[in-house]
Order: sequence, then structure tokens, then C-alpha cells
Amino acid sequence: MNKRGFASDNNAGVHPRIMKALADANGGHCIAYGDDPYTAAAKEQFRKLFGECDVFFVFNGTGANVLSLQAMTQPFNAVICADTAHIHVDECGAPERFTGCKLLFNPTTDGKLRISDIKRHLHGIGFEHHAQPRVVSITQSTEMGTVYTVDEIREIAAFAYANGLLLHVDGARIANAVVYLGVSVKEMITDTGVDILSFGGAKNGMMYGEAVVILNPALAANFKYIRKQGMQLASKMRYISVQFDEYLKDGLWLENASHSNRMAQLLCQEVQALGVTVTQKVEANEVFAILPAQAIEALQREFFFYVWDESRCEVRWVCSWDTDEDDIERFAAILKKLLDN
Amino acid sequence: MNKRGFASDNNAGVHPRIMKALADANGGHCIAYGDDPYTAAAKEQFRKLFGECDVFFVFNGTGANVLSLQAMTQPFNAVICADTAHIHVDECGAPERFTGCKLLFNPTTDGKLRISDIKRHLHGIGFEHHAQPRVVSITQSTEMGTVYTVDEIREIAAFAYANGLLLHVDGARIANAVVYLGVSVKEMITDTGVDILSFGGAKNGMMYGEAVVILNPALAANFKYIRKQGMQLASKMRYISVQFDEYLKDGLWLENASHSNRMAQLLCQEVQALGVTVTQKVEANEVFAILPAQAIEALQREFFFYVWDESRCEVRWVCSWDTDEDDIERFAAILKKLLDN
Amino acid sequence: MNKRGFASDNNAGVHPRIMKALADANGGHCIAYGDDPYTAAAKEQFRKLFGECDVFFVFNGTGANVLSLQAMTQPFNAVICADTAHIHVDECGAPERFTGCKLLFNPTTDGKLRISDIKRHLHGIGFEHHAQPRVVSITQSTEMGTVYTVDEIREIAAFAYANGLLLHVDGARIANAVVYLGVSVKEMITDTGVDILSFGGAKNGMMYGEAVVILNPALAANFKYIRKQGMQLASKMRYISVQFDEYLKDGLWLENASHSNRMAQLLCQEVQALGVTVTQKVEANEVFAILPAQAIEALQREFFFYVWDESRCEVRWVCSWDTDEDDIERFAAILKKLLDN
Amino acid sequence: MNKRGFASDNNAGVHPRIMKALADANGGHCIAYGDDPYTAAAKEQFRKLFGECDVFFVFNGTGANVLSLQAMTQPFNAVICADTAHIHVDECGAPERFTGCKLLFNPTTDGKLRISDIKRHLHGIGFEHHAQPRVVSITQSTEMGTVYTVDEIREIAAFAYANGLLLHVDGARIANAVVYLGVSVKEMITDTGVDILSFGGAKNGMMYGEAVVILNPALAANFKYIRKQGMQLASKMRYISVQFDEYLKDGLWLENASHSNRMAQLLCQEVQALGVTVTQKVEANEVFAILPAQAIEALQREFFFYVWDESRCEVRWVCSWDTDEDDIERFAAILKKLLDN
Repeated sequence: MNKRGFASDNNAGVHPRIMKALADANGGHCIAYGDDPYTAAAKEQFRKLFGECDVFFVFNGTGANVLSLQAMTQPFNAVICADTAHIHVDECGAPERFTGCKLLFNPTTDGKLRISDIKRHLHGIGFEHHAQPRVVSITQSTEMGTVYTVDEIREIAAFAYANGLLLHVDGARIANAVVYLGVSVKEMITDTGVDILSFGGAKNGMMYGEAVVILNPALAANFKYIRKQGMQLASKMRYISVQFDEYLKDGLWLENASHSNRMAQLLCQEVQALGVTVTQKVEANEVFAILPAQAIEALQREFFFYVWDESRCEVRWVCSWDTDEDDIERFAAILKKLLDN
Repeated sequence: MNKRGFASDNNAGVHPRIMKALADANGGHCIAYGDDPYTAAAKEQFRKLFGECDVFFVFNGTGANVLSLQAMTQPFNAVICADTAHIHVDECGAPERFTGCKLLFNPTTDGKLRISDIKRHLHGIGFEHHAQPRVVSITQSTEMGTVYTVDEIREIAAFAYANGLLLHVDGARIANAVVYLGVSVKEMITDTGVDILSFGGAKNGMMYGEAVVILNPALAANFKYIRKQGMQLASKMRYISVQFDEYLKDGLWLENASHSNRMAQLLCQEVQALGVTVTQKVEANEVFAILPAQAIEALQREFFFYVWDESRCEVRWVCSWDTDEDDIERFAAILKKLLDN
Repeated sequence: MNKRGFASDNNAGVHPRIMKALADANGGHCIAYGDDPYTAAAKEQFRKLFGECDVFFVFNGTGANVLSLQAMTQPFNAVICADTAHIHVDECGAPERFTGCKLLFNPTTDGKLRISDIKRHLHGIGFEHHAQPRVVSITQSTEMGTVYTVDEIREIAAFAYANGLLLHVDGARIANAVVYLGVSVKEMITDTGVDILSFGGAKNGMMYGEAVVILNPALAANFKYIRKQGMQLASKMRYISVQFDEYLKDGLWLENASHSNRMAQLLCQEVQALGVTVTQKVEANEVFAILPAQAIEALQREFFFYVWDESRCEVRWVCSWDTDEDDIERFAAILKKLLDN
Repeated sequence: MNKRGFASDNNAGVHPRIMKALADANGGHCIAYGDDPYTAAAKEQFRKLFGECDVFFVFNGTGANVLSLQAMTQPFNAVICADTAHIHVDECGAPERFTGCKLLFNPTTDGKLRISDIKRHLHGIGFEHHAQPRVVSITQSTEMGTVYTVDEIREIAAFAYANGLLLHVDGARIANAVVYLGVSVKEMITDTGVDILSFGGAKNGMMYGEAVVILNPALAANFKYIRKQGMQLASKMRYISVQFDEYLKDGLWLENASHSNRMAQLLCQEVQALGVTVTQKVEANEVFAILPAQAIEALQREFFFYVWDESRCEVRWVCSWDTDEDDIERFAAILKKLLDN
């Protein structure tokens, strides 16, 4: 058995129910590329959650984000985002490469983009020498483990709309935000006016697969071509679809996120009890904290995790659907020993 | 249980041994993105088969082909291929879109590119008004179910090398060719001078995953960036890797291909016995044949398959790792009835 | 004084009236990038010729063609053209590179695309595995010196429209076609249903500059961004505009083309009188002919020109606005001597 | 005669000597696309100035910058620049669109990038999730009218080299910097270790045309294809080349820049004498200053110029090769009146 750590929810395995669903869907032939009953069923689950929408399954989060932006832009456009955004920091320039667009970004203290951050980038609209803003992209929950309230999203969507912009949400960890806010994903996404959502699965118990959920129907017409040309059309689609069906049909996605959020709360309490400074509000499944430099390395030998900001000894710990209380107790015990030295 | 047909080897399910390997790899945490023991083991399997090489796992065949070409070209280059090539016909223009290159192609009778087909496109070399040929891309086994001999590949590789070109092989069905020729993949690919091979898995019993096998080490240095920017880096990599490990480690890939080739032979014999004209040599797992127009539709109601060339009533039947003799007997029986009417 | 030849109308100089207009526009300051009175005047000339239209000046023909296609397509589209098209053969893959689109082309005998050539490429519409045809691009006059009739253009435009396609005309030598047919450019282009025309200037007496004439207003909205991002926005725009104003305002463009067409007719007669086979109808300013291999090189030492098809000793001669009868007499005399040997 | 203003050196006309050179080069035929004696002569002028180098003429500054970056990068690379850089602010996203690269930028106080600004962006090198820094791009003289010293450029080049980066200089106003520093362009560019320079002409008395000067020979091999595919190859090349020949051959470029620099000094003194705050060192041909809001509009009615930073009433005035002392006296007189009110 592989050891559990706090490096990333991508390091966790696949939930047993997902694994079983994969096995159950095996056997016999299905039409490839999505024209199969598993895909129809999974899409139906999305419509139950979001109301009317178009759904396209892709392989991974970078694919979901980049193709979403592609559907919303022309190459002379710009995308406005936080400087911590995955699309800006962690996708090796794929958004610029594939959409042709410029990314306009802002430093934020907590990973959350404000209206004022967006406004700064709008002065060049209509002036052909500047890339033309067309999309605001926010991450829910953010890369800093914080969560936009429903009102904040509604306000951003309204501001975007009023300024001729579209709103994209990178929801690689959307489940954690839904659970944290205790609202439905429809209230958070459909009803606030989001245009496209990248809906994550892999970080919360699936094996692979991400869904592009298009709430603005005008953006859906050509998406099948964008997906195929974007190298994100799975041949044996049923194996993505059946995962999403199982993930959504009776709340497994919320159960998993609920658990990882709770574990993050526990972890936060434990390390704060040890006098450790936690640098961000713990609203989803991540904890950011400052550790003494020498403790970091020693702790990493026991539990793998990443240093977030070397200059100030800030580290990131991520809880997963399979993190258990023992993991946290052991972690806290070891950390205590290191800090006591 | 889903019904089996002859539409595509992409329609078949996952081999039980692959399914079991996925389940066995589940549990606990693994470092994401490929720095895990499953990936190391799978790469080792590739090196056992090919000798020294660099291997990068990606999600699908289009991804493997496009990223391979990206690693071999600059945007002002051209890629020479057969007009039946998957990269030309079936990838929605992804190669042009992502590499920036022009595709130069030729009609062929059997899906196999000849030296003379390549030569036609070389006259503009050095002349800046023309896209500059840089890669020859062939498919093994071809989209027409035929197979290049080892000598043919060696000859193309030598010609390419002599003309400053690189050789890419789209091996979505490489296993079927290896089995047909009865040679090792090293003799067929490494020793002939192929530069990069797209090595397929999904069409022959895997769930998802394709490998880019780089034989020319000069092309490997930047591939990790190309893969990430190309949206083809899996987060939970272990689940691709463990499939490849199982697929390769004691010959499952050859077993499966051997079976589907044999089924195609059987199918060919059965339909020829009914007087049906088979239009291509059956060397891999595909049978191309001419049917009376009215028989096609009726037959499709029983067994799903595609019409290849409407204008001459040519159809394509593909056998899979899970096709069985009963499928073929039933198919032949129904076809017989339709032809007898 | 540089010697005149028959290699290309691009080799000719600038008409004295254009040169004088440039000098006259010099002095003092003008707002850069097109917001100046010269540009307004030149656009007005275009509207006089074409009726209501949007006009954008760019640097060169490749720029005009590529940006026109960019305005008409999304990256998953395809452009249908003749295999002799400049966009296919002579732009180093710029159309694919910048639009992301695939070019679908056909051999033709005379450079003219027929409805049947277009039809062949439409079978994949709606099927996401194939690049989606969106534009038909024809060249008027063609690269083979032939001219589409007004009826032929109208028929292609209607067919395109009926099939959801747009029509682009590469008019690098549009003036020669207008003169040949004896119709107005409005009858030929606006009234037939062309969507965008690349209107050439440099091959017919201008120094540099090409105009993108957008007849379909839906395609104009974003063109200013496409031009700027496409690196084709001139800072000192007045110097392109004043050329176009002079070129168009009282028929200089037709005079020049009329002359070069007439010279091509004369050249054709002279060489035919020597027994030389002319391989294409001479409708514009180009003559294609077969010469004995040994005569070609000797003739090239006296007059520079290009071999078109080495395999059959076909050469191309282009007449320019400044070709004179003496040039042709001298040329014919030398050719006669070479053929007599 | 068009009125002179202080909006941009792009608004000025063409120097009479350049105009005469254009007229002198007219007449007769020249091989198109650069294989002509004017181009050979102009390239020779560049080699006299820079020492051994490859030179490619293009149409405009955006073209020169984008193609230079294209020659230095692969799509997964990043380019580091100041946040005032023309490539970042004023090219409508063309660098991202055409190279595929991400731009990494920093705020600066004076348009000059420091080593510490570059360092901040290097932490992700070798980590595939991040775009890989490959080029540092600086502007000389900067968009803020300041000038890098030779030592500063040498230091940046050395730092770049030590970190596996290349150095690009956007020299749209390189002449103004050469004159200001009183060094040769060879000392400033070749000897410091610059890899590619965009050498401007249009802002300093030419009609159109920019030169890409490649000092690092490894970057030159494919540039002719990059230029053609990049839509920047002029057909009637002689008319760019002859301008450069005249511009360079006996110092016209330095004379013009010397004059515009001197006019900027004069303008600076005049407005400072009126109590106006000048916000940047005046080292080249630009003056940045703070004016009372109500004075700006009134002044713009007499002399066209741009507001640089609306939020603090900062304006930009640019002097040109044809600005004269009278212009400045009149300007200062009007400004005085406005300020006195």
C-alpha cells in the first residue's frame, strides 16, 4: 500500500465506488467517442445538478480550462485572472499557446479576484493596440484554499456581463466549495451567471476525467470540434462517463469533499494548537502555514508536501478524500516533536 | 452486457487483466504527474522492448501523434503522409493547428506511402515560399489494415535521413503489425531508424493511454514541456502506467493483437466464401469489402460497423481483442441470408 | 536602369504617378495607424468602386490573404482551394499557421476551382473528427493566367452560401481580370456575393500595400484587432493610403492592367508564331509555354523568368505595367534564334 | 502641409533624402523578395555598423519584434520584459499569439528592466508545469524615453547567458540611444552580447521598414522561413532596402536622432521653466510630464499628443526628426498661457 501524505489531492487514489463502477461498465462493445448510454446517463446527472446545460467530458483540468477559454475567445482577446490562477501559473503557457490570448493578472492576497482587479484591465477596450479583454476566469475553491461566496460570484458575473465579458470558473475543486458554502452548485454557478465551468473529478476521487459544463448555450455549438481538435476527445468515453455518473448520482462527490474539508479543519486546529501560523483561511481542503525552515525538510521526510513560498517558509498541505484522522494525528505528533527541538 | 460489433476496436472494452492491474494499483498516495514507481516500471518495459528510448505517456492517439510531430518540427515545416493518414483525416486539423505545419499528402491504393510519394514533395526545399518538409509520417499497421514490411520501413527511414527528414510512425495498431510480421518491435522500429513512434494501447485492450516512444534522443529533451503545454500530462499517472506495465510485461499486447488478427482472417475467409469482394489485403485486424447497397443497412441493424466509401459501397469491419468466433459465425450467417435474398 | 524581364510583375518598379503621390503626401505630421485624411480618401475610392464595404490596408498579399481567412474561420475549420492557390503553394504555410485551419485542395487543369471540386470536401460536415469546411478561396485572375467569368463566380458564391461556406477571392491580380472581362469590379465581386476580397496593388504599379475589402459586414467588426495582432498595421499609414487613392481615383489601376494584358497577348502571338506551344489560355498578364530544355537556360541568360514545371519544360512569363513592345520584340527575336539552332 | 505635433514620431513624414533615394531606385526590374543589389548594399551597411551579422528586412516594428522572438523560442518558453514593453502593451497580444510563449513582466519605474526583475521569474526552470524562460527582451531607448547604459546591457546579457537565456533588444528608437550615449551601435549591441536586435527605421525618418539584426549566428538559419510564414517578406524589397542604405550610409540615422533628442531637451527645459514637473529623465526624444487636467485638453486642441497616465495627469510628448525650434516655442507659449489662467 502506498503511503498517504499531504502533497496533493492528485496523489490520492480512486474511490472504491468509482473503481467498482469502472469494472461494472466493462465488457461488450459501446460506440466510441461518447455516443453511448453511459455518457447519456452522466450528462443527465449534470443536468439534474445544474439545470439545462451542455456537458463535454475531457481528460484533465488543463484541457478543461484551455478548451473552455478557447470556446469563449478569439485570439486577439485577453483573459483576466488572479496571479495564482492555475491557468496562469501551472499550465506551462497552454492557455496562451492554444487560444492565442494574453493573460492579464493581478496579485491577490487570498487567491480571490475582486471587481477592482478586473477594472484595471479594461481601459484598452476598443483600442486595437491592446489585447481585448473578453473573459474573467476565477477558481472556486481557489488555489489558496479559500472560497468565493455566492454573492461574490454573482457580483463578478454581473460586472463581467455589464462590460461585455464572459465568466469562466475553474472548478478543479468545486466540490469543496459547494460543501463549504452549503449551497447547491446550481445556486453557486448556474444562477449567478457563470458562462462555463471546468468541473473537476480527479482531485476528489475519480481516476481521470473532467467536465466542461457550458451554461451559456451560445458557447456550446462548436465545442465538439474544439474538443476533438484540442486532443481531448476520449475514444473509450464510457470509462470517463461511468465515473461521473457514479460520482454524482447520489452525492459521492459531496461526501468526498465534505470529508477532505473536515480533515483540513482538523489539521488546521492541530497545527495551530502547536503555535504554527496558518496564513490563509481554511475554507476548502488546503492549509497554508509558516514553519521554521529546519522543520520543513525533516517533516517532508515523513510526509510528502510542497513548499509554497520558499522566501517565507510557507508550506501547503492538502487533504484528500482518503486522508484519515490517524494521518493527521501522526503528522501533528511528528511536527510537535520537530518544533520542540 | 453490451453487444459486440465490428465498428471499431475502440468500441471494445478493457481486458480483464488490465482492469485487475488498475484495481491493484489503487489505494494510498503516489506522487502525481509520473514520478511514481508504476511509471518507472512501465518505462522499463518499453526499454526492454525497444532498447534505449525515452517514453512519455499521454491520454490518446491524437495527443500522441500531434505532440510527436510538435517535437520534430518548427511551424514552417511540412509533414508528408498518406491521404488516408489519421493525422490528415481524423484529427480535425489538430496537427496543423498545434504544430503550425502544413500536411503534404498523397493518394495511395493501400494506405502505404512509397518513396516516390515522398519525393514529389521535396522540390521546394530551401525555397522560403514553400513550407519545408521535415517529417515523414507513416501508420503501422495502416488505416487500410495493411502492414509495411521491415524492409519498407528501413528504406523509408534511410530515404528520410538522406533528405534531412525525420520519420514518425503512428502505431495506434502497432501490435497487430508486430504480430503479423512475426518480428520484434525493436527490429521493426528501433533498428530501422524510426525517430518517434506513437505506441497505441486503447485499441488493443487498454482503457486509455498512449505512449510516445522517442528513439532519437535529440528529440526528447523538451518533450516534457510539450506534453504539459499540450494538455496531455495526466495527474494520476499511475493509472496509465500500470496499464502499460500489465500490457507489456508478459506479452498481453501481442496475445490480444494475435487474436484480433486471427479473427480478421476468419472473417475474411467467411465473407469471401459468400462471394464478397475483399478490397484490401487482410494483414492486421481490419477487413474492407464491397457489399450490395441494400445489404449494408440491413446488416448494420444487427452489427454496428462503418461504411468506408459510400460511392462504391465499401465497408470496414474491425476485429477486436474480444471478438470471438461465434460473433463471426453469426455475422456470416446473417450476411449470407441477406445476400441470398 | 535595371533591365526588364518576364519573371514577375513583382519585379517591376513603381508607376511614376504613384511615386509622385507619395512625394506629394510627404511633409508635416499625420496621425499614425490610419486615422488620417489620406486613408479616408482612399477608402472612399474603394466605396465608389465596390459600393458599401469595409476596407483595411495591409502590407502585402500574404498578409491580406491570411488575415482575410482569419476573419472568416475558427481554427477547426477548413479552407477549400485549388492546388495552385497562392495560399496553398506560396505562403510557406502561413494560412495553416495563423488560422489553425486545414487547407483542402484539388488539382485543376487551369487554376480554376469548379463546384465539383468543392463538393468532394463537404462529406465530413458535422462530423467532429474532420476539419469543418468554412471558406472557399479562389484566385482572380488565377495563378495560371486564366480568369473566372462573372457567372462562374456567382455560381460558386451561391453554392458556397447554400452550403454554409463563405467565399474569399485572392485578387492579387484582380485588375487584370476586371480589364479582361470588361465588367466593373462591383459586378464581378460585390454583386456575385463574394464575402472578402484581397485587393492587390503591388503587382500592378504600387510600391507596397494591399487592401482587404470586406463585402460581408458581419466579418468586419473585429478586423482591426486581427490586423494589428497579425502584424499588418502600418504606422505611417498615409503612405499606403495615398498610393491606393492615386491608383484608383481615375483608373490608373485599369490602365496598368490593360497594358500588361495587352503585352501578354502580344507575347503569346509572337511565341506561337515561332511554333511554341502555349499551355494555358492567355486571359490576364501571364503566358505559360513549353520550350525545348536547352532553349530555356539560354533564354534565361537574357531575360530572367521562372520554369513552372520542370518535368515538362513548362515556363511562365509575366508581363508588367511597364513591359513595352520592344521588350517583346527583343525577346521573340532571341527566342527565335535559339529555336532555330 | 500637415501640421506638426508631439503625439508620436510615427506621425512625422519621410526625410527628403529617403524620399529621393526611393525615387532614384525606381525604374526597371529587380528580382523580388530581396535578391537584388539594393538589398545587398543595405545589408553591407549593417555589417559595417555591427560587424558580422545576419540582417532581414521586415515591414514594421511589431513584425520585427514578434519574428525575433519566434526565432529565439519554442512555444513552451517565456519571455521576460518590463511591463511598459511594446511587446507586452502595444502589440495586441501578437507575441503570445504567434510564438505561443507567455510574457513574464515586471513593473519598473523608468522602463528599464533590472537583473532583480529577471531573477524573480527563474524559479520554475526545469519544472514542466511552468512556461520556461528563454528570452529577456529590453527596449533601447525605452518606452519611457530613458536609455540603458552600455554597462547595463552588458550586465543583462551576461546574466542572461549565465542562465541559459537569450537577449533581445527592441530598438524601435535605437538611434536615439546611440546618439545619447555617444557610443557606436557595435559597442552597445554587438559587443555587449545581444542576440537579436529589432532595428527601427520608421520612427526616425523612413517611410516603412524595420531590420532584424541577428548577432547570434545560430539564430539565423531558419529566419527566412520565419519571415515568409510570418507575412513579413516584402515582394518589392528594393524599396525597403534602398531606404536603409540611404539611412545608414553616411549617418542620416544619427543626424535625425540627434536632432529629435535635442528638441526633446529643449522642450523639457521650456516646460520646466514654466514650473511643469517632468517625470522621467529625458535621455532620448520623449518628455513625460504632469499637467493640470484642464490644461491638457486645451493644449491638445492646438498640438496633438497623448495622455500617458490619466490617473495622474501624466502626458507624453515625442519629438521627431522634423520637429523644429519654432514648434517648441509656440508650444511653450500656448502652454504658458494655459497655465497662467
